Amino acid sequence: MTDASWLRGALLRLDEVLIDHAHCEKKAASTAINLIFRYVDQGPLVAALSPLAREELEHFEQVLGLLAARGLVLRRLEPAPYAARLHAAVRPAEPERLLDTLLCCALIEARSCERMTLLAQGLTEQGELELADFYRSLLASEARHFSTYTDLAAHAFGREASRARLAELAQHESTCLVHAPGRLHG
Amino acid sequence: MTDASWLRGALLRLDEVLIDHAHCEKKAASTAINLIFRYVDQGPLVAALSPLAREELEHFEQVLGLLAARGLVLRRLEPAPYAARLHAAVRPAEPERLLDTLLCCALIEARSCERMTLLAQGLTEQGELELADFYRSLLASEARHFSTYTDLAAHAFGREASRARLAELAQHESTCLVHAPGRLHG
Repeated sequence: MTDASWLRGALLRLDEVLIDHAHCEKKAASTAINLIFRYVDQGPLVAALSPLAREELEHFEQVLGLLAARGLVLRRLEPAPYAARLHAAVRPAEPERLLDTLLCCALIEARSCERMTLLAQGLTEQGELELADFYRSLLASEARHFSTYTDLAAHAFGREASRARLAELAQHESTCLVHAPGRLHG
Repeated sequence: MTDASWLRGALLRLDEVLIDHAHCEKKAASTAINLIFRYVDQGPLVAALSPLAREELEHFEQVLGLLAARGLVLRRLEPAPYAARLHAAVRPAEPERLLDTLLCCALIEARSCERMTLLAQGLTEQGELELADFYRSLLASEARHFSTYTDLAAHAFGREASRARLAELAQHESTCLVHAPGRLHG
């Protein structure tokens, strides 16, 4: 669970939150496309991840619009250590690599959903209603993307096995959130 | 210009044409996303290539639908030598690298447009009307993507300089089409 200090830090650095968010959407699209390349002969995975990648790109473009409206430009950011730490738990040999990668992607979506919920609440209280509405509008997609990844895992590895591994990886994921104010996954 | 033997070869190998086409759309999306990552601080490029990548993914999904309708699966294919040969002409140092990459992408789109026009005609004559309509429906996008890439080049490097380099690269591109029957860019 994210504690209240994360939201305080984020609300003080909204510009950075938005820039980081743009990078996260772009990264999410690119991760989905990389999975399509790596597992191109797995029909259900390919069929599910192509529309998911398109949706991430659509969100990326929406965040670009918000940046432009605030006079901000999409500058490069040093990546937060979160994703590299999280993926360090992925077992290198197949088929474990696929199972772990799908579940790590699911956990990233779940964490985004949790953080965006907090942001939407905090932004509403601060009177930043347009931005609050934007984050609220993304919640259903983030939750759906979590299910896309867990359903793919369950389809390929069975519901029990993937649920058990998800619990282990979720434990690990919670230790990957190092202090990185203004980052969705920091 | 593509000669008539290409079309004859393609019409004899429609299954492979479709599988290759799916890979081409996926590759086009991935190339656009890679350019967004590499040039993320170039606003016009990022703004133009994200919707382009989404459209390539949409075409990818359409081809997947056609494959499924024909009982085909998206198997891996050895890449045709075309793209590697074409990109060998990209100068390695910036800013030439960006100019050449944009123009190579433009030439790939132009070649797709030419080949899909031939396919649409040949398929119509063969009575494969659904597939002919599909290829006809893609022509406007391919032509638009050509303009997206050449406009980005003209915007960043000037119309004259990019036109002159496009002529050089087009000359090179025509030598990259080695005999690879059943491939859009073979």
